[in-house]
Parts: sequence; structure tokens; C-alpha cells
Amino acid sequence: MQHNKTHDKRVLVIGLGRFGSSLALELVTHGWEVLGMDSNPRLVQAYADSLTHTVVADSTDDEALRQVGAQEFSRAVVAIGTHLEESILTTSLLVDMGVPNIWAKAISRRHGRILQQIGAHHVVLPEHDMGERVAHLVSGRMLDYVEIEEDFALGKTRAPREILGRKLGESGIRATHGITVVCIKRHGEQFTYATAETVPQKGDIIIVAGKTDRVERFAELT
Amino acid sequence: MQHNKTHDKRVLVIGLGRFGSSLALELVTHGWEVLGMDSNPRLVQAYADSLTHTVVADSTDDEALRQVGAQEFSRAVVAIGTHLEESILTTSLLVDMGVPNIWAKAISRRHGRILQQIGAHHVVLPEHDMGERVAHLVSGRMLDYVEIEEDFALGKTRAPREILGRKLGESGIRATHGITVVCIKRHGEQFTYATAETVPQKGDIIIVAGKTDRVERFAELT
Amino acid sequence: MQHNKTHDKRVLVIGLGRFGSSLALELVTHGWEVLGMDSNPRLVQAYADSLTHTVVADSTDDEALRQVGAQEFSRAVVAIGTHLEESILTTSLLVDMGVPNIWAKAISRRHGRILQQIGAHHVVLPEHDMGERVAHLVSGRMLDYVEIEEDFALGKTRAPREILGRKLGESGIRATHGITVVCIKRHGEQFTYATAETVPQKGDIIIVAGKTDRVERFAELT
Amino acid sequence: MQHNKTHDKRVLVIGLGRFGSSLALELVTHGWEVLGMDSNPRLVQAYADSLTHTVVADSTDDEALRQVGAQEFSRAVVAIGTHLEESILTTSLLVDMGVPNIWAKAISRRHGRILQQIGAHHVVLPEHDMGERVAHLVSGRMLDYVEIEEDFALGKTRAPREILGRKLGESGIRATHGITVVCIKRHGEQFTYATAETVPQKGDIIIVAGKTDRVERFAELT
Amino acid sequence: MQHNKTHDKRVLVIGLGRFGSSLALELVTHGWEVLGMDSNPRLVQAYADSLTHTVVADSTDDEALRQVGAQEFSRAVVAIGTHLEESILTTSLLVDMGVPNIWAKAISRRHGRILQQIGAHHVVLPEHDMGERVAHLVSGRMLDYVEIEEDFALGKTRAPREILGRKLGESGIRATHGITVVCIKRHGEQFTYATAETVPQKGDIIIVAGKTDRVERFAELT
Amino acid sequence: MQHNKTHDKRVLVIGLGRFGSSLALELVTHGWEVLGMDSNPRLVQAYADSLTHTVVADSTDDEALRQVGAQEFSRAVVAIGTHLEESILTTSLLVDMGVPNIWAKAISRRHGRILQQIGAHHVVLPEHDMGERVAHLVSGRMLDYVEIEEDFALGKTRAPREILGRKLGESGIRATHGITVVCIKRHGEQFTYATAETVPQKGDIIIVAGKTDRVERFAELT
Amino acid sequence: MQHNKTHDKRVLVIGLGRFGSSLALELVTHGWEVLGMDSNPRLVQAYADSLTHTVVADSTDDEALRQVGAQEFSRAVVAIGTHLEESILTTSLLVDMGVPNIWAKAISRRHGRILQQIGAHHVVLPEHDMGERVAHLVSGRMLDYVEIEEDFALGKTRAPREILGRKLGESGIRATHGITVVCIKRHGEQFTYATAETVPQKGDIIIVAGKTDRVERFAELT
Amino acid sequence: MQHNKTHDKRVLVIGLGRFGSSLALELVTHGWEVLGMDSNPRLVQAYADSLTHTVVADSTDDEALRQVGAQEFSRAVVAIGTHLEESILTTSLLVDMGVPNIWAKAISRRHGRILQQIGAHHVVLPEHDMGERVAHLVSGRMLDYVEIEEDFALGKTRAPREILGRKLGESGIRATHGITVVCIKRHGEQFTYATAETVPQKGDIIIVAGKTDRVERFAELT
Repeated sequence: MQHNKTHDKRVLVIGLGRFGSSLALELVTHGWEVLGMDSNPRLVQAYADSLTHTVVADSTDDEALRQVGAQEFSRAVVAIGTHLEESILTTSLLVDMGVPNIWAKAISRRHGRILQQIGAHHVVLPEHDMGERVAHLVSGRMLDYVEIEEDFALGKTRAPREILGRKLGESGIRATHGITVVCIKRHGEQFTYATAETVPQKGDIIIVAGKTDRVERFAELT
Repeated sequence: MQHNKTHDKRVLVIGLGRFGSSLALELVTHGWEVLGMDSNPRLVQAYADSLTHTVVADSTDDEALRQVGAQEFSRAVVAIGTHLEESILTTSLLVDMGVPNIWAKAISRRHGRILQQIGAHHVVLPEHDMGERVAHLVSGRMLDYVEIEEDFALGKTRAPREILGRKLGESGIRATHGITVVCIKRHGEQFTYATAETVPQKGDIIIVAGKTDRVERFAELT
Repeated sequence: MQHNKTHDKRVLVIGLGRFGSSLALELVTHGWEVLGMDSNPRLVQAYADSLTHTVVADSTDDEALRQVGAQEFSRAVVAIGTHLEESILTTSLLVDMGVPNIWAKAISRRHGRILQQIGAHHVVLPEHDMGERVAHLVSGRMLDYVEIEEDFALGKTRAPREILGRKLGESGIRATHGITVVCIKRHGEQFTYATAETVPQKGDIIIVAGKTDRVERFAELT
Repeated sequence: MQHNKTHDKRVLVIGLGRFGSSLALELVTHGWEVLGMDSNPRLVQAYADSLTHTVVADSTDDEALRQVGAQEFSRAVVAIGTHLEESILTTSLLVDMGVPNIWAKAISRRHGRILQQIGAHHVVLPEHDMGERVAHLVSGRMLDYVEIEEDFALGKTRAPREILGRKLGESGIRATHGITVVCIKRHGEQFTYATAETVPQKGDIIIVAGKTDRVERFAELT
Repeated sequence: MQHNKTHDKRVLVIGLGRFGSSLALELVTHGWEVLGMDSNPRLVQAYADSLTHTVVADSTDDEALRQVGAQEFSRAVVAIGTHLEESILTTSLLVDMGVPNIWAKAISRRHGRILQQIGAHHVVLPEHDMGERVAHLVSGRMLDYVEIEEDFALGKTRAPREILGRKLGESGIRATHGITVVCIKRHGEQFTYATAETVPQKGDIIIVAGKTDRVERFAELT
Repeated sequence: MQHNKTHDKRVLVIGLGRFGSSLALELVTHGWEVLGMDSNPRLVQAYADSLTHTVVADSTDDEALRQVGAQEFSRAVVAIGTHLEESILTTSLLVDMGVPNIWAKAISRRHGRILQQIGAHHVVLPEHDMGERVAHLVSGRMLDYVEIEEDFALGKTRAPREILGRKLGESGIRATHGITVVCIKRHGEQFTYATAETVPQKGDIIIVAGKTDRVERFAELT
Repeated sequence: MQHNKTHDKRVLVIGLGRFGSSLALELVTHGWEVLGMDSNPRLVQAYADSLTHTVVADSTDDEALRQVGAQEFSRAVVAIGTHLEESILTTSLLVDMGVPNIWAKAISRRHGRILQQIGAHHVVLPEHDMGERVAHLVSGRMLDYVEIEEDFALGKTRAPREILGRKLGESGIRATHGITVVCIKRHGEQFTYATAETVPQKGDIIIVAGKTDRVERFAELT
Repeated sequence: MQHNKTHDKRVLVIGLGRFGSSLALELVTHGWEVLGMDSNPRLVQAYADSLTHTVVADSTDDEALRQVGAQEFSRAVVAIGTHLEESILTTSLLVDMGVPNIWAKAISRRHGRILQQIGAHHVVLPEHDMGERVAHLVSGRMLDYVEIEEDFALGKTRAPREILGRKLGESGIRATHGITVVCIKRHGEQFTYATAETVPQKGDIIIVAGKTDRVERFAELT
């Protein structure tokens, strides 16, 4: 089959464990065509109905990869988790095939480094990243927390008493706390963006943006 | 030792694998006191210097948990990953000890459900959650993506040509695309909040908020 | 198939090891319809002829349980012995399916506690219970012993010399020993109930009821 | 050490798994001197404080058995569960040492038969026996059930409507149902023996004796 | 099939390892009908052509033994070597079936003792027996050695210089050495019995009989 | 230490399993000095008291063999049973060290052949040899049987009715049956040699010599 | 099939691991007929297309070897790597079949020695040999190095400044350095032999011959 | 310790298996200082006396590598054979430390490719290379064979009859066979270079250079 690499909406997902399958299903939900590959027939069968295509194949075998047309894809995800060796072999083959966007999951920083040395374009460390993210929830009243960039974060929290009943534009919250309220959710309603006119009320959930420590500290007001 | 459960800044982290250690280190960085526990002496030794306290102990043993004062903590994280059984036994013991905030990592939805049935207060599924999050990055031009709530998301993306050179307040972006630009990062600068007066320029990175599919679609403009 | 949960005489037995199979066979003997399930084909085959229905299936798989109609049963026994994890996963699924009477076998007190936390209605510990019961036989002249309730037991023993040749009603045995003779078995005959008129003779086997320590002590008379 | 075999209150318990330890602890509770032996140091340590004596030793080694004076005991329990081989070797040694009362736990009927062929005096099958016992509870309204002898059982059940409010001696229950009420427990009170004068009331728990199928059927009245 | 147990020339050999197969083949060579049984299909196939009948079956399974008619044999050999458990289970079953001549191979004295306790009629210990026999060959000039009975042995050795050239009847060998020359083999000829007239010559091989230590010492003359 | 190879009474026994230990103990009983070697410390300890010297060492390690002076021995037994590889490596080393009498135990004919190719002087196959020997006992009324040479055997059997009450010299037994009675054991007495004057009586046990099939057939007379 | 052993161009390669397969493929490239044998079906299938014949068979089984006609080959390679036992058994069988040229791969010197004792004609130690060869490349400027014979080697190196621009015959290089330049490769050309007239130039690669230490030292000039 | 990277004669050898140890010993023989590292204490001990320095350490641990000063070496050999993962992790660490000359052993072409992708400077495949080299010896009369470059080889062979008794310069051998005789070894003498004047005689061993197929074919003349 012929594929136009630049405009295709196709992704090859190798490894249908928890990370790979969640990723693949999410892509299918958003209208992408996903070819799911795993050497374990049970896993492949489990997703045979929900993914666009599935195949039982050993991704460390050059020939097997070519037979499914791996070289035709413009996006591939190496979601092999447990076996460092398989993850590295597979990534190495995809690099040599010239796949232009390779995402690879790593289980340690060194593993991630090796995947980069070999030529993976993006490396993900689910356990590390989630560990850090959840740390912010464990420690306080924050309901969610994401570090968007080094030293800049978004936090989801209940609106603290201090800012209730006043327009955000007049609360001096940026000056006092170094954060901005960017979204707000009224009780029983959905999230929407916040403006200078927005007046937080008791029970509202807000999303604030700012430097990581300011976001942290602000959440402790609640 | 005596602890005032309500105001203490202490967390018990059981399981020092990748998730648990990342979480524990992040907490220490933010000034929390962390007691790290694992049955594997090598892991415990690896974090002996960086965590406040560490102990080699079998967390499935009631007596062992009591000896480290588990019942005194107001926050505990069961970060045991691979062995369902250990994760469940440990959580069950903490529940019976009355620890008021138990976070537990699960490796499957059913595992998560069991932890809830037993009485864990928060359940985290790192592989699933990261899988879904990364799906949005693989598929497009988005640089980061977080679902804050069912059907409301934040996306990090390059500012698309369409909104360059005009004040955000005048661009009609909310009407046209159903999203709001909440933060912006100029080339070479740091992230800051965006206002109606902000004028995006070529090369700016922005964070937009909105319904999940609108955020998705907006990122494809770039 | 349709089932009327309240009046059915059907039991789902998951796990056909020694405990599960003995239980299932006993039920069949008493006219119950038993569906025996195990993931081990050899065990299933061994009981294919003696149980009403048998099926090879993985009871930790939601789909597999539904296919055999587990949710239709009003009584289920989780007789999985060795693997804590399987026992817990299976019980969790049955609870979520709303099976109203779940019996689960545990191999330790903590295992039993977890099964209760998850929602099992009855928990059995065969090794513990039999260990305690046999203790009473090892230690003395008792032939059988059952604790009916905390501090109330039934004991089977030879009639001691002291009560031979007199009507039970006149022997003062309740006053002296704090026990009652409730059944008696003449040599070569079958057990029957004892009355105040019954006259024990040498070689008779009796069943006595009373507080546990009184039953214990009475048996030592023999 | 010298022991008078006939009057001693000492038991050797080999194997401190769930069955053996429950049995040993129960004996100690009733004032017996128990020597607990296991080849697993962890198990031995777990019971070092609660049993009279404990020793780490390989019970399949003739010399090891002699060193702890196994031949001096008048009662020994071989509670080795999983390993048929160890159970048989140990029993064979005790038989050749002339221990007069050997109780041995079996995991299958054939195992039990071999223990008898070798010379064990009593054989127990916990999983089988409990499986059969629990079958009677699963199937009905019975609260407990014990088969005292082939075709004679005791059952614990709520008093059925049919016998409420009348003296047992006048209820014709023996004639109608072939069972005798031997004990009764009033709500909030303890069990006591029942007489012809006893009048069961709603909510009473009774113990009935009779042929197994009569006991079964009677329990279904409730 | 019907068998007359007393006159049949049939043997059931269970276990076709080295001992069992050598035994079975030797029997077939001497005109016996052998049914070889093993649970390992490869072993059974290896002897399918050379034994009268072969069957793949699990000899620890009562039903399987009956299906091959084990109970009809008057002679059975349990040649199961490595697994004590299988050897014991199989022997126990054959005993209960009433097989009148059971030979069982043991791998240790205790194993042998257990087989006897269970009811095996003859127990063989190949490794022990051959070890003792070979000891006599290692230590000296003896060419073969068999202990026929406690303290009576036969030895094969070269005729020592001392007895060459004289009639055995005149050599006084019985008086001097306490042994008798019972057979002799001339160079290039076959063995034959020795008489008082026999004159040993250089290079002759002889078989001598006598008390074990006399046979030992005589061999050292050579 | 210095050793005179030709006259020493020392044997090196490598491998203290059932064959090796039986052989070693038998040698010690007859006054030999035995150095027992095994890589398993438990086995070595078990024979530390009964053998002259014992050592824990890896016999496949050239250096280890030299340190115990293996090259000084004139007799060595490689009694390593299970591991073909260890048996072969050890034998190869002893051959290269020039030990003049190497006995090696084999577990298969091919193993035996390899040991010969490498240079072992004597090869023993206990399981095979005992299998063949026992075959003669299973099949008949023979009490013991040894093949002294191809087609010449000794058999132990009860004296058949046919030869009772007559002098052996007159019974024509050699002519009729092709065998010679070489030893005889009266009831309650010990074995002794038989002469032409010997008169067998009912209950006597005899040892006969002759061609293998004649010995076989003669035993069937009994 | 009939084969004329002396003139055939056929090789039997047993073991298709890395060494065996590389060897087999190289032979096929040069027009030889290769029968590749391995007990691992996956390996055999991998080379089914590239070798002349392939067969899945257990080379330690006499019968299996004969069925493929091993005894007809005049050349066999035992390329079994990991399992000493298989390597030895196979070689022993080939020796006994009379194969006149047996090459065997060894993994240690002792393994190699045993193969020789058994009768292999050539023994190869890839890891050892390559280790020694690479040592010469690691240590210096040499590009390749082969020891042709004890104390005579060939080295590939860049032409050192000292010999540039002069005819080799006049450079006195044999006298000064004890080596001879035997081949030369001009930049962009192929290797050819060198003569006394050859004038090395900057960038030329040369092959020199001489005693090992002279070759070593000469390479260090570069 | 301080090291001058450019002039040092030090090599770090990681992995002391057959390849690594042979390489390390060869280097020591030629006067190099070698630090041998392995995670297996037995291997390290085996070479403690023969290598300059040895250390037991886990080379996949960044910290461990730094403690032995790995970053100070200008030459390192990763001789880890069996475990792909360890080989890759170690090489990745050395690359990031900036070691300028890394030699790494691979067990497959893909493994080799990954090592190159990561940044190893030289990759060796012992099993493949030796397999190909030995192929030339198996197939013919060649005594040794080395491919110096793609399509240029050196072969060691007996001088064929055709070139005996004539000066090499006059034999026309280059024209006829496309090869050059570069070295020659007289019977009983050592190798030396060949000239146009050299006259080969019967029994001489020669080394010839030329294109691979010409060398092959020439060897077949012998």
C-alpha cells in the first residue's frame, strides 16, 4: 500500500501494554488510524476490535517490521515497557528505516538517553513523570498539577476564601501571589476561561498559572 | 514520636521504584519530610541520602508497618508497582490503621477498583494516564496536553499564523475556535499569562484552554 | 438463560482444587445444580462428569465471567486457594456484578480481611479452622470437637465411667461438669438424641454440649 | 530429658504453616506444652514467642528428629502441607521411632491412604473436610453444619416459624422432621441445652441433631 | 482380557528410565511379555518396538492404572527413579490393587523403608548396591565381586601364582585361604566349573567362593 | 605429601552421591584410605566423620584438583552422576594428570563411550547393570543372579525337588541341566562350597554356575 | 544417496548459531553444498532458504544423525556453542561413525582438549582467538593483525612517514625493522602486492610480515 | 590519579569472559596496563594475578564506572557478551563520559549496529568473523585464511606441485592464478618473506595474497 507520509493520519504503535494500549485507543477515539503490534497474541487479540489494524509480530525482527510496512509510517510509538533490549532493538530498526517521528517509552533515565543516542525523536518516562506530578497532589490541597515547562506550572485547586466575592481583576492576586487564574468551574457547571470580571464564589474550582513555587504556595491557602 | 496529623508535612512512601522514588524526591525538593520504605535493600540504599528517612521493611507485615509508625502518618502513598498482591495487602493494612489520606498506584483498572473497594482514597494509573496524554502529542503539532476534567483540556502549541500580529481580544479566537489563550511564552523569555491586549508573534508558544476536541483541532492549525 | 435469583438452586463454584471440588461434589449430592469453573483444563475435565456444568475460564477476566452468566447466580463460591491475586480479582468482579451471596476461601487472616473489605459476604479459612478443631482431638480423648460459637462447643467422646449405668437426668452431670449429653450412640447402633431417661453404658459414644473449657475437661474424664 | 509418655501433656508439631500453627496455638491456649518444628527459619521465628519450644530442623533427617527428642513424645502432628514427600518421609521416621499417636495432615485421599499404610494413626484432610462442611452453608439457611458420623449431623439454624411458641416436647418435631433440638440461643444470650419444656421464639438460634438429609431439609424451613 | 495370575509370564514395568528399560529389555530377551508404562511419551516411543506393549500413562492415577489392567498382573516393577512422590503413590496403588509381587526401586534407604511400610515385596537400591560392588574392584586386582549373602561372597580374579600348576584338590587352598575355586576360564576358552582335578595355569581366570574378607584377601595375592 | 603410587591403599572418590558414598564407605570398611570430594558442602559434611579425608572442591577446576593432590593418587573414582558435563570435565583432567586407574560412572551407554574415548580405564553403569540383574529375579524363582561373563552366570535358588536326597556327584545334574552346584546353604547355617558328596535337602539354598540360559531354566524347576 | 567421500564438496554443519550460520553461509557463497542441522526449529527455518539443505534434528541422537546420512560426509563442523554436553555427545557420535574431518568449536581450552581426546580433528575457539587478535588493534595504530604461526604475524597499518617517497627495495626497512611490506593499497584503489620498486606515499595502507614483536613495534611508528 | 590520555598505555576492559580475558591477557603480555572489570567476583578473582588491576563492579552503574576512573581512559573495550542490555548500557555510559576509543563486542549484526548508533568507535563480532574465516579452512586444503579487506585475502597453504622447483619470478603465477606468494616457510625453518628469486620446494608452506576467489581457487591446486 502507498502512503503519503506528510498528510497521513496513521500511527504505528508497537507494544500494547498499559501505556501503548491507552495511547492507541485514545488515538482511535480522535479519528486516527492505528496499527497495533505486539509479539503477545493475547494482547493483540484483546485490541483486535478496537484498533484499526492489529498484528502479532516480533518487532525486533527486521523482516517482520517490513512486512507490516513500518517504513511507510510517518509516526511510530515504541511502547515496549519491560524489556530494555526489545525496546532498543525495535527503535534501532525504525531509525534505520527512516521513520521521521519516533516516540519511545523509557523506564529509566539511562534507557531514555540510549533511545536518544540511537535516534528516537521523543522519549517519554511515564512512571517518573506521573510520580512527580502526583507528588504535588499528595502534598496539599491541589486537585491536579502540571509542569508545562521548567519553572512554570498549572494547578487545579478550590478557590481560596481570600479571593471569593471580588472580581479577579481587582483582587490583586497577581501581585500578591504571583499567579493568574486562567479558568474557573462553577459548582454544577463546566470549566470556562476566567476574565478580569470573573467573581469566584465558594465551591468554585479554579486553574491557576504561574511559577511552580507560587502555584504550590497558592494552593496551600485553601 | 508524636505527630499532629492535621498540620504535619510528612508523607510515607511505600515502594521506591520509578514512580515512588520520583514522587518522593519531588516532595523532598518542596520541603516535605518523606519516609521511604521498600523491602528491597538496594533500592532503599539508593535513596538513603536523598530522602529524609528510609527503611527496609516488608509493608505487607502488620508489625513492620507499626514499628515505623505508619499509623501516625496523615498521608501515605502505596507506590508498589509490579506485585498486585503486595499493593493490596499494604493498602488493606493502612486502611485498617486509619491513615486518612492513602494514595495508591494501580497497574490496571481492575487493580484500581480493588484498591478503592478496600478503601484507598486516591488511585493513580501512571501508564494509562501518560498513554492518553502522549496520544495527543503523537498525533499532531501539540507540544503538551492535559485533560483537566472530562471534556476540558489545556494544550501547549505554537501560535498559529492565523492569530499572529493581532490583540487576542480582537482576534475572535474564542468565537471561531472555542478556545482561550491563557498563557504565552515569547522566544527567549519565560511563560506569562495572556491578556486581551497580548499580541502573539511568530515563534511564540501558547497555552490554550477549551473543550477537548476544540483544543485538538486548534493545534492542527499550526 | 433466565434465572429467578430468589428460588434457584444453583451455585457457581470458582476454583476446583481440593476445597472447591469437595464443596461442589457435596452440593451435587444434595441435589444442587453446580457450575464449576477453573482456568486449569485438567481440573475441569476431572469433574466434567460429576458436576452439573463445568467450564474452563479465567475468572479474573470480566468478559469470561459474564459469558458464563456469573451475574445471574445468587450464590457463588470463590474457592481459589493458592493465588491471592486471583482470589481477590475474582471476588472484586463478582461484587461489582452484584452477586448477592459470595463465599470466599482465604489462606490467611489478612487475606480474609481484604475479601471482606472488597465485599465478600462470607469468608472461610479451612486450614486455620481445621487446625484449631484438630487441636482438641490431638490433645485428649475427644473423638471430634466443634466450636459452634465463641465459648460454646460440641464434643464427641466415649462415655466416661462416672456416668455409666445411671439415667442422665439423675446423674447430676450438668451441675457437676457444666455440660449436657445431647446425643448417644450404642455400640453397633446409630446415633440418636439423648433424653433424661437415657442410661449410658460402657462403650457408648456421646455428644456433649457446653462451654468450651467444660467440654474439654469433661472429655479428659474418659 | 526424661518424659513419662503416658501422662505427659506435650505435643510435637512438625510444620508451622497455617494448619500446624493454628493447631499449635490452640493447644498452647489450653495449657499444653508444644514443640514446634519447621525447616523454614522465618516460620519458626514467627512462633518463637507463642509456642513453648520451637526449633528449626529438617524433619526428614533422622538425626535431626532424634536430637530434638522426637522419640520421647507420645503425640506428634505432621502438619506438613505442600510437599507430599516431606510429609511421608517424616511420618515414616516417626513410625519407626515408635511414637504412639501420630496425626498427619493429607492433601489428597491417596496421600491420606499412604500415610495410613506407613502407619499414621490419624489422618486429617482440612481442605476436603471444610469443603464438604461449607457446602451445607452455601446451599441454604444453615449457619453451621458438622457431620459427626456417616449419616448423622448437627446443624445450626434459625428456629423456623413452625416450631415457635410451643414447647419442644409438644411440637412433634421429632416425628415430623426426624430431628431433635439439642441446644438453643436466645437473642442476646448464650447457647444453652434445650429440654422438652423449651419454647423457641422468633430470632432464636437452635442446634438440631439427626440424619444428615433430615437436618438439611429442616434447615430449609427457615 | 483374562489372565491366570499364577502361570502367566507377564510383567508390568512402570518407569522406562535406565533401570526400568534395561530390566524390561532383559525380560523380553528371555521370552517374557512386558507392558512398559511411563508418563513421558518420548521414553515410551523409544521402547515401543522392543517391548511387548507400551503405554503412555500417569501411574499415580488410579483410573489410568486400572485401564491398562494393572490389577491383573502378578508381577509389577516400580522403576520410577527420580521422583520419590510418584514412586510412592504408584506403589501404594498397586498394593491396594492386590498385585502379589511388587518390586520397587528406591533411591535411598529411607525411600526403601517407606516402600516396605506401604507394602512393596522387594526393594532394590541400584546406586547403593553397585557402589558397594564396585568398591571391591577399585581397591584391588579383583575383576568382579558379588556378595551373595551377608558375609559370603563370590570373587572373579586371576589365578595367583601360588596355586598354579597343581591340582586344586591338592593345593590346600581351602585350608590356607578359606576359599574354594568354583569355576575357571582358560585363556581363549569359556568358563566352566572347577573340580579337585583342575590344574590352574598362568593367565587363567577363576571364580572363588568364601567369606567376604577371605575372598578379598585372596584376590590380593594376584 | 609423598606417595608411592604402586603400593598405596588410597582412593580418590569424586562425587559423594548414593553410588560414590556407598563405594567410599565400603572401601573404608575394608581398611582403605579414602579422600572424598564433592562440590556440595552438605554432602561433604555428611561423610566428614566416616571417610578418611573429605574436601569441598569443584573437580572441574584443574587448580582445585591439584591442590588436593589428585595427581598423586593411583586410583580415582569419578562418581559424578547427574551432570554429564562435570563427569566428563573431571575425567578429562584426571587423564591429563596421568592417574593410572580411573573408574568412572556413566548414566548412558554414550556417556560411557565418551568416558572411554577420553581415557577412563573402567566405566560402570549402575542403573543398567542392576536393571538387567533384577530382571532375572522378577521373572522367576531365582533369589539372586549375576552374569560373570557374556553367557556365563551364577544363580542363587532353592534346591529343586529333583536333586534332593542324592549326592550331587550322582544326580547327573551337569548332564541334564548343564549347570554345576558350587555352593550350598543349609537351613539355619551359612553358605559353604558344594562337593560331589553333598546331598541337598528340602529348604537348602544353592548357587549354581553355567551358561546363562541353563541357569535361567534350572531356576524354573523350583 | 551415494557419495564419493574424497571428491565431494559437501559439508555437514551442526549448530546454526552465530558461528555455525556464518560459516555455513560463507561455504554456500563459495559453491559448497551445506546440510545445516539444529534442534531449534526457529534457527533451521531462518536458514532454510539460504543453505542447500536444512534439517531439524537432535544431533545427540545416534539414530537422527544416521537418518540424515551423517556417516556419508567427509567434512563435518560441530558448531554447537553453549551446551558443552551436546557438543561432546555429537562429536563422539561423529567420531564413531568415522567421519574423516571433524571441526569442532570449543568455548574453553578444557572443552577443546576434551574434543581432541574424543577424536575431533580440528578445534576452534572463536572468542579466545578473536580476543587475542583484537588486542593488537586496541593497543595501537594497527588496522588488522593476524598471527599466522607462533611468532610470525601479518599486520595492516598506515605507511609510516619514515618509508614514504622511497622505493621499498632501497628503504632498508627489512634491516632496520625486521619486517617486509608484502601488499599495498593506494588511496581510492584496491590492494595489490608490493615489490622492491613500490614507492609508498602518504595515506597508503600496507600489509607487513615479520616476527610478532617486530610487526607490533613497526605499527607504532605511524 | 592523573592520566595523560594521549600517551598512556592503559586499557579498560569491561567483561572478563572468554573474549575479554583473552584480549586483556594478550595486552598485558605486550606491556600494557590493563584494568579488568566484571560484575562477577569469580571471574575477577580468576584474573586478579595476571592483569594489572581488577575490580568487581557493575559497569551499568554510572557511579561505579566513575569510581574506577573510567572517564580517564583513552581506550576501553566493552567485552560483555551475553547480555545485550548490559553491553548497551555500559557503552552508552562510556560514550557520555567521552572515552575517545571504545571497542565493543557484539553478538549480532543488529547489536553491532546499535553500538555504532550509540557511539562505539569499533565493533567486533567474534562468532561471525571466526565462522567466516573457518569456512575457508573446512572447505579445502587451506591452512589459514584472512580477509584483509572486502575482496582481498591472504591464504596459508602448502606450495602446489605446479610452482615447485622454479623461481617465483619466473613461474608466471601472478598471471596464471592472480595471486602473489608473499611469505614462505621451509620445512623445519621459520616463515620469511618470499622474493622473485625464491624457489618453492615440496613441503613448503606459503602465504599468498590476492582477490578472495583467486586465493580460494589457488589453494585447491594443492
